[in-house]
This record gives sequence, C-alpha cells and structure tokens, in this order.
Amino acid sequence: MPEKIILDCDPGHDDAIALLLAHGSPQIELLAVTTVMGNQTIEKVTRNALAVARVAGITGVPFARGAHRPLVRPIETAPSIHGESGLDGPVLPEPTIELDARHAVQVIIDTVMAHEPGTVTLVPTGALTNIALAARLEPRIVERVKQVVLMGGGVHVGNWSAVSEFNIVIDPEAAHIVMNEAWPLTMVGLDLTHQALATPEVAAAIAAVGTGPARFVGELLDFFGQTYRDAQGFEHPPVHDPCAVAYVIDPSIMTTVRAPLDVELTGALTVGMTVADLRGPAPEGCTTRVAMNLDNDRFWALVVDALERIADPAV
Amino acid sequence: MPEKIILDCDPGHDDAIALLLAHGSPQIELLAVTTVMGNQTIEKVTRNALAVARVAGITGVPFARGAHRPLVRPIETAPSIHGESGLDGPVLPEPTIELDARHAVQVIIDTVMAHEPGTVTLVPTGALTNIALAARLEPRIVERVKQVVLMGGGVHVGNWSAVSEFNIVIDPEAAHIVMNEAWPLTMVGLDLTHQALATPEVAAAIAAVGTGPARFVGELLDFFGQTYRDAQGFEHPPVHDPCAVAYVIDPSIMTTVRAPLDVELTGALTVGMTVADLRGPAPEGCTTRVAMNLDNDRFWALVVDALERIADPAV
Amino acid sequence: MPEKIILDCDPGHDDAIALLLAHGSPQIELLAVTTVMGNQTIEKVTRNALAVARVAGITGVPFARGAHRPLVRPIETAPSIHGESGLDGPVLPEPTIELDARHAVQVIIDTVMAHEPGTVTLVPTGALTNIALAARLEPRIVERVKQVVLMGGGVHVGNWSAVSEFNIVIDPEAAHIVMNEAWPLTMVGLDLTHQALATPEVAAAIAAVGTGPARFVGELLDFFGQTYRDAQGFEHPPVHDPCAVAYVIDPSIMTTVRAPLDVELTGALTVGMTVADLRGPAPEGCTTRVAMNLDNDRFWALVVDALERIADPAV
Amino acid sequence: MPEKIILDCDPGHDDAIALLLAHGSPQIELLAVTTVMGNQTIEKVTRNALAVARVAGITGVPFARGAHRPLVRPIETAPSIHGESGLDGPVLPEPTIELDARHAVQVIIDTVMAHEPGTVTLVPTGALTNIALAARLEPRIVERVKQVVLMGGGVHVGNWSAVSEFNIVIDPEAAHIVMNEAWPLTMVGLDLTHQALATPEVAAAIAAVGTGPARFVGELLDFFGQTYRDAQGFEHPPVHDPCAVAYVIDPSIMTTVRAPLDVELTGALTVGMTVADLRGPAPEGCTTRVAMNLDNDRFWALVVDALERIADPAV
Repeated sequence: MPEKIILDCDPGHDDAIALLLAHGSPQIELLAVTTVMGNQTIEKVTRNALAVARVAGITGVPFARGAHRPLVRPIETAPSIHGESGLDGPVLPEPTIELDARHAVQVIIDTVMAHEPGTVTLVPTGALTNIALAARLEPRIVERVKQVVLMGGGVHVGNWSAVSEFNIVIDPEAAHIVMNEAWPLTMVGLDLTHQALATPEVAAAIAAVGTGPARFVGELLDFFGQTYRDAQGFEHPPVHDPCAVAYVIDPSIMTTVRAPLDVELTGALTVGMTVADLRGPAPEGCTTRVAMNLDNDRFWALVVDALERIADPAV
Repeated sequence: MPEKIILDCDPGHDDAIALLLAHGSPQIELLAVTTVMGNQTIEKVTRNALAVARVAGITGVPFARGAHRPLVRPIETAPSIHGESGLDGPVLPEPTIELDARHAVQVIIDTVMAHEPGTVTLVPTGALTNIALAARLEPRIVERVKQVVLMGGGVHVGNWSAVSEFNIVIDPEAAHIVMNEAWPLTMVGLDLTHQALATPEVAAAIAAVGTGPARFVGELLDFFGQTYRDAQGFEHPPVHDPCAVAYVIDPSIMTTVRAPLDVELTGALTVGMTVADLRGPAPEGCTTRVAMNLDNDRFWALVVDALERIADPAV
Repeated sequence: MPEKIILDCDPGHDDAIALLLAHGSPQIELLAVTTVMGNQTIEKVTRNALAVARVAGITGVPFARGAHRPLVRPIETAPSIHGESGLDGPVLPEPTIELDARHAVQVIIDTVMAHEPGTVTLVPTGALTNIALAARLEPRIVERVKQVVLMGGGVHVGNWSAVSEFNIVIDPEAAHIVMNEAWPLTMVGLDLTHQALATPEVAAAIAAVGTGPARFVGELLDFFGQTYRDAQGFEHPPVHDPCAVAYVIDPSIMTTVRAPLDVELTGALTVGMTVADLRGPAPEGCTTRVAMNLDNDRFWALVVDALERIADPAV
Repeated sequence: MPEKIILDCDPGHDDAIALLLAHGSPQIELLAVTTVMGNQTIEKVTRNALAVARVAGITGVPFARGAHRPLVRPIETAPSIHGESGLDGPVLPEPTIELDARHAVQVIIDTVMAHEPGTVTLVPTGALTNIALAARLEPRIVERVKQVVLMGGGVHVGNWSAVSEFNIVIDPEAAHIVMNEAWPLTMVGLDLTHQALATPEVAAAIAAVGTGPARFVGELLDFFGQTYRDAQGFEHPPVHDPCAVAYVIDPSIMTTVRAPLDVELTGALTVGMTVADLRGPAPEGCTTRVAMNLDNDRFWALVVDALERIADPAV
C-alpha cells in the first residue's frame, strides 16, 4: 500500500523534482500539496507549484497556499539559488488547476484529521511555518500523523551560515516548534543531501527518459547546477528535497541515527542551527532521527523510475 | 455608536471584570469572546469565561476556545495569583451557553473579515498567542481592524521578572509578532494598571450596586487582593484587564505616548520585556502607543456604571 | 578626613569636570587617576587627562593609561558628544606631567593594596574595563576597597539605545563583572544624572569664579551643551560624571535605593541595560544601590566650591 | 633549535602528560608554566602542576598561579573526569619548587616581551582566561608571539554539551577574545583529540619505559580511563592536551585546515561552541587553523620518546 503524504514545499528547483518524484512513484499517494514562502515569495512558489502540476499532469490533488512570511523573523528568499521566479530555467506553462480555497494550514489539518490515525506522513521541504501553525491550531494532528520527514537543517554542515541551513534559519521558531513536538520525525538535512549530487551521469539518465517532464527536470538541473557553482562553489548541485520523499518511498536507501534534536534560536553565530546530541545512545522516548548516509545509486534510480512512470501530458 | 470589540482573554479575576465591563458598557458592542491559556490552562480559563457569561447573563455572543500553549515556549500559568481554577474565590455556576465550534483564531479572523474595515477593535487581556496566530493565518486582518488595545507589558516596571509582565513573558514571540505588525496598537501595561488599585472605597462602591454580578466582582476582588498581598506585596490589588476595555470606552481617561515598541526575545535578564524608545519624538509612521497615567476615579466610575447596567439574571 | 579615591575616567567633558571637582574638593584625597578608552581612544583620553591636570595644577598624583579596548566587544567611541579629540571646545595645553609607567590596572591594584582595608573608593566614570580587569587579576581588592561609586547605566532610561547607557553598553561584560562582585557599589546612572543639567544659571555661577580652570569648565560646557542639543535633543546638557564624585563628597545630596543590580549581556534590544529589581525590598546581603533623586542646588554648589578652591596655575 | 613555549594549563591528567611531553621533548624549550582554574580550583591545579614538576624533576622553569575564575561566568570544574584533587589516581609528592611571585598573566607578558618577536609559542591546554587577560593588559604580545596552539573546542563534536568542549565553555568570553586576536592560532580540538586514545597498546608502550615518571603516567591513564568510561562512555580515554604540545614539536603529525574560527557566546544550546566556517576556502588574512586528522602512531611515539628522555629523579 502506498504511503500517504502531504508535500509542503516552496518550489524551488529541488522542490519541483520532489513533487515529480512523489507524483510518479507508485509507493506514494499524494494527498495534498501545500506551499510556503521560502525560495521565493508565497505568490511565486505557489504559482510554480501549479505550473509543475501542469507539467506533470497532476490532477485531483488539492494545492493550497500557505504562510506568506516566517512566524517571527522578516522574510528572506533565495534568488541567488533559485532565480527571480523561484524556478528559473525552464519556460513555465500557465497553470490549469485551481488553488484550493482553504489556507494550507487548514488543508494540512483537515487532511490529517480525515484519514486514519498513523497513516499520513508530512513531508516539508521548505520552511516549517505551515507545519508549526498547524500543530498550534490543532494539536491533535501531532498524535495522528504517522511521521514527519523533512528536508532541512544539518548537524555538521550549513549552507546559509557556517552552521545553519536555509529552510531552518529563515524560520527557526517554526522549526523549533516542529522538532519539539512528540511526533516521529526524521531530519533529512545537508549531512545527507550533500551526497545527492546531480552529476553528468545523473543528468544523462534523466535525459534518457525522453519525456516532457524529464526534459523539464533537465532544464531545472541546468539552472540549479549553475547557481550552485556560482553561489556556493559546488561542482555538481545537491538535490535536497527529493531525498525526503525518497526516504518515505524506501527508508533503506539511507542510514539514520536516533538522537535528540533541537533548533538554536538565540545564537549570534548559530541561530537556526539544528543541534543533535550524538554523544551517546539516544534517551528513551526520543522520537527524532537524523539522516546520515545515502545510497546514491538507489536514490537516483527512484527518481528516474518515477519520471518514467509520469505520462507525457498533452500540453 | 458603540465600539465593536473582540475580547481575547484568560479569566482570570481581572479578565472576568473586563468581560463584565465590556458587557455592561453601552459604549461597547461585544462581538466575540475568545480564550487563551495563561492565568490557567485553556480548559480552565474557557470554562471560567463561560461561567462568567452565565453570571452576567451574556447571550448571543460567540465564545471560542483558543491556544492551549504559547507559540514556542513551554506553558506557564499563574496559580499564585488566580488560584487552581484560575478564578478562585466565588462559587462558579455551571455554564449554560455552548462554545462556538470554531477555534478562537478562526473566530477572530471571521469576525474581523465580516465587519467593515476599521470598525473592529481587538482587546487582548492575556497572552497574545491567538492574535499572533490570526495575523499569520490571515494577514488581511492587520489592515482591517480599527486597532489593538492590549493589557500587557510595562515600560518601567515588571511583575513576572524585574522588567517583564506575565502576559508578554509567557509568550514573547507572540507579543513580538503582534507589536511588530502595522496596526494601531495601544499597550495598556503595568505603568498604567498599577494605578488601577481596588481600594476599600472601590470595593464599597461596587458592593453598593447590590446585584449578583456586583457581588461576584466583590468576591473576585477579595481573593485577588489576598493573593496580590501575599505574592507581590501589594496593599490593594491592581486590576489590570478592565483598563484596556476602559480605554476603548473612553480614551480620555488615560494619557498615552506614541513611541516605538518592541519585545525582547533573547535577553538573559530581559526576555519578555516590552521596550519602548521614549528618548525623543516618535518617528513618522509609528503606530504604537503606551499608556501612562490613569484618571482613577473615572475608570472606576466606568466599572461601577457597567455593573449597574447588568441586569441581575434569574440564576 | 577626606575620602581617598581612585578616579578611573575617559575625559570627556564631564570626566574633566569630575576630575576638577575631585581635585578641588577638600573632602576628597585623589590617590590616582587612571584612564580607559570610551569617549575617545585611550591615547586621546589619556592625553586629555594630562592636559586637564595641567589646567588645574594637579601634581603628585599618578596618572596611568589603561585599557585600549573593551573586554570582548569592538571599541566604540562617542565623537558625536565629545568631538574628535574627546575634549573638543577649549584649547588644551601641552601636558607637563609624565604618565606612570604602570598599566592603570596595576596602579589600581597597587593603590588599593597599599592602603588600609576599607579606605579606598573606586570612582569609575567611563567603561568598567579597568576595574573588571583589576578584580580578575587581584581578587583581594574586592574585599579591600571601601566601595565603588560609578557613573553609568540607568534603570528607567537609556542614551545609547532605548534602555542602555554609553559607559555600560560599550563594555557590558566588564560592567557585568563589576556589578556582580561583592563590594558595596552605588550606580549613579542616567536616572540621577539627567537631573544634573548645566543651565544658564549654572554656567553663570561657574563663570563668576573667574579663574582659568573655571573658564576652562565654561568652554567645556559650551561645546558639550551644543552636542547634547544636536545629538540628543537636550535643552541643557546633563553633566554626568561629577555626580559620582559628588556622591563620595556628600552622599546626602542624592537619594539611593538598595536593589539587586545586573547587566544584560545577550538581549537583541537590551544588551548593556542595567537591570535593577525594584519590585520589593532588596534581599539580605544585597550590596548594590541605585541613585534616584538629586539635590541639584547642592550638587552645583559643590562644583562651584571646588572650582573656587583650585588656584589659578601660572600656565 | 627547540621551540620556546609557555604552557598554560590546569592539571588535570592530560595536562600533566602534556607537561611531561614538553619537558622531555628535545624539540621544546619550556619557558614557563602557568596555571588556570578549570579541571579543578586554581589552588588544586597549581599544587598539581608543582607536584608534576617534582615527579619529572623540572627545575629552573617559573611556575605561576593564574586566574581563579572565568572572566564573566561562574566557575565550573570537572571532578567527574579528574577527581576531587584534579589529578586523582597516583600519590602526588609534596612540591619542592616555589611558585613564582608574579601572577600568571604577568609571567606570560614578561616572558613574551623578554624574548625576540616571533619566537614564543603559547600553548594553552585549559580555559583561555589567562591568555585573554594577558592580551587585554599588554596588547603588544599579540604581534610578538609566534603562534597560539591551544587544546580546546571542537567543530563537529562536543563533550560538555552536544556541541561545546569543556575548556571553551567554562570561559567562552576568554576564548572569544583569544580566537578573535590577529595572532596565528591553531585549535587542536575534540575533532583531533578524540583520535588520541590511550589504548592498551599505548599503555604497554608507556609502561615499558620503566621509569618513575612513566609509571606516574600509567597511573594517570588508569584513573582517567575509568572516569572517561563511566562519565562519557569512551572505551579508551582521549588524551587531549599533549596533542597541542605534539603539534608544536612536529606539525606534520596532524592535518589542519585554515578557516575562520569564532566562539558562540549567546546560544541557548550552543554557548561555548567553536564555530569554524568550512564552507569554502578561507578568506585572505585568516590566521586560524583547525586540527583535523592525527597520525596516532607518531603522536604516541613522541610521548614515549619524551618519557624515555626524562631522568628518573631521586625522589
């Protein structure tokens, strides 16, 4: 039986690929797509999500717009990585599906409460603002979800500062809320995603799929690879967000370690750092895990397989 | 024309008096009562609000339960002041009205959006959790409300630490959100409310009203006076929350100063402090005011007048 | 018997007047003058101290140069108030006395240890860097001094931010060290010194003294008055530092309140704030006091009297 | 020509071994030994240093007592690792040499200023309190020393919290001062020292030396090994402090990376963390390095070689 997920994202190049992976994988049942500001403004990332839905022929899934800004801090976007549109590179088609009338937070709450306990996985690949708001407005979702598998953070590495990652540092209070709730939570952070590099071999395998959605992914990787080279000195771009979806599809493609996990809110150098205590065995009752090592071949095989399953829509 | 208000409260002795003042005053149209944890847990303060509604014969006004905990920090209540029930002292009747099915945050949003722009005043007399959540979930309310008049904080005085006040320090992130939005906001803090002391003369004037609700207020003040003596060394208890309602009824009963206002989130000694910059004239566009001096006689006259207008319900 | 003091200062206009007051007053025995960066760099304030010594004919007192920067934070000076030299306004004479070869911190330690226990008062009128270093290098001085009477801080008012004062905020860690040691300490802060305004009447009384040193003070006040008008909107300049010396001369010219006192090191809005807990009686063993109200006439009378006693040196 | 060093330490088991390594190595000229509170109180660690001097027959080297407490924070010691004496395990002989009359900070300053520029290396293996005080009291030492090679901190690992190391976290302000001065500085932290494990093979090699000092080291390692097993779950104890001395003897036994380095002073979870920015090449002018990988065999060979060169004193 496929895993039911809500994808909470801010497309964003790697978010877009995460959405395609979730849509194409037979192990995933996509219950809803919710958006959150981050890589760009909420207007832009929401439009991008809808455009990706058209590229991939996603229908029958509610798409809802979410938080327009972080809980406490001023908004910060990432045009140096994702361009002015948030999804620069490919030409984006006009969306054909309509946004859900509800706020993303309400869609998350309604969807979790409408399904059996222990069946819905939340997969946030952007700032955790929507998830935090949902947990505060309807605390019963914390016991009801199966788990949270998020892309964000990093125990031993940062990208937005020496020790902080973008998704967490732009709304650390939201991340603090999410990581301190009692649900099972796996953090797929930079420790893991910096292993998921889109090498030329990966690009070739994706190109070989030969469909419109695969060409779209190729164009995303071209742009994303260039900005990662220019802005952060990467030879090949790390493709973060699909790793979280891939973990839901098949947890065996990565190793994780159970450890207490928290978010620094007040450091002068460390604000937004995800702090895992790896000094010894995790205490009883610890519900948080950190992803460590990726089976890179199997990860990309999942992505290519999903792309092969996505029919070429008659655009 | 009376002022339309939403009272967001955590009864709480002075919250209860604020509710009676709002109900009894002909200058106030009470659109909704929403609750928030604070003086006690959300279950207790919500039950207390409903019990006060019965005492005062309030009907036709939605009462909705709100946030069960602060945004980021652990919950902290105030039994040393308000007792185990949150409203110790009088015998509380069983509530007879039903809670609104919606979350308090939704009631706030729906109510503001359902009325004409610039007509609804938010009057929070507890932690600002609900108001902050509402502003994040529906940012249009910020431009749509007439103003926010809150009881909380203090520029030159604290009660929960040397420089922080209870309502703010228990959820400083929420207060930070509310005070940094662009709506007109008046902070009725300890600088002002420590002038609103329930002296024996005040108690006598209230007792002279002679109704059930007035006796109820008398019993509240008896208990509240005792805990304030024991826990904080006050000779007569400061009756904080009705001051915010009184300001809406008649702003001329207090002086205010326009000044930039913010909340400290990270100080070791000062977390939760409301910081007003009083060094010079406020900059253009500053929308925040701080209450300074109270006309104590006119304040209590408003309270007594409201009590006189509340019919003695056939309990 | 006159009070033995070490004046630790950063002249600075009001520091210069404090030095003249200490020199001229028959109630003060000036044991040493030590300098600390602050109003200007250590080179400039040290030269200024020596120049003032020549103006006033101070001889036989060691002058020693101290800390060139704060303990932890980057150096910050106050040219907007004190000008580029740190003592703009009068023409400064070339110094004629030599600096002591020792570091100011060593002079403080040696001086305190060379006198009887309980006889030496430290009077810092700048950043507390030297005093903090002395307490760390020779902890026995803490028990040995009579008291510390410092100009700095403010409980209800700031000048360098909404809630912080310059001397404290430029080296809050040093202030934290000094205020947390067990010596008797009186903070003469902005609460008090903003009452010590150099009005035209004050200026006239000083001018009437008619000596060179008095004319020098007049020129200082002219410049200082102008910068305080321009930079901080004061009609007449507050003359901070002599207040601390005046308190040593005659404590009855001001009221003080005993209260726990500490310095905020980590606040986003409140770093460098001096936090006094005024909510109730001070706990047993509390050794800190905060100055509150000034007898302004008697304060200026002390200053004028001291100036009258300073002989006009043959420059 | 041997490297001139000042060893600033808080013996402490691994400090004692560091002292023996410095004394025995022909590549080291030990100019002075200064002590600082840390593993135990200043009285205890100073007595321990003198006792180790007797064990090893160290004469003609000044030993001076230093800081009795951290700059700002309250004192914290480590009896769980080093026992009540700070050097539990072996029977300590009565010291036979006298303490230098000067404060450790003065000895550091005098020693650096008395030698040619660029010839003296500071080797702190405890809290950085003395070094920080010396840099503030005599800033010229910063340009004059050859380098600072310190044991402390850790980029990817902590021992006193999830991300902080004992020497740094007990006086983070001192560490901040030292790491932000412009001298060449190499941090030999837990990243490196957790590779320097005293395995049974190491213990056997030391025992084979057969002298009194070697037996003393063996007894230190027995105790230290036990506390590290009990308190931190290590199979074999990491012997931190000698690594810093070994780096001075032969830098080729470890790899280092040049990177900006700083100390977090205000984090709720991260206070005392040493933050290195390893995201890209270090900026021009960066003078800080972090030790990464140890050639374990060559490290222990240096220790054994030094022990073999220390004559068995006629105790």
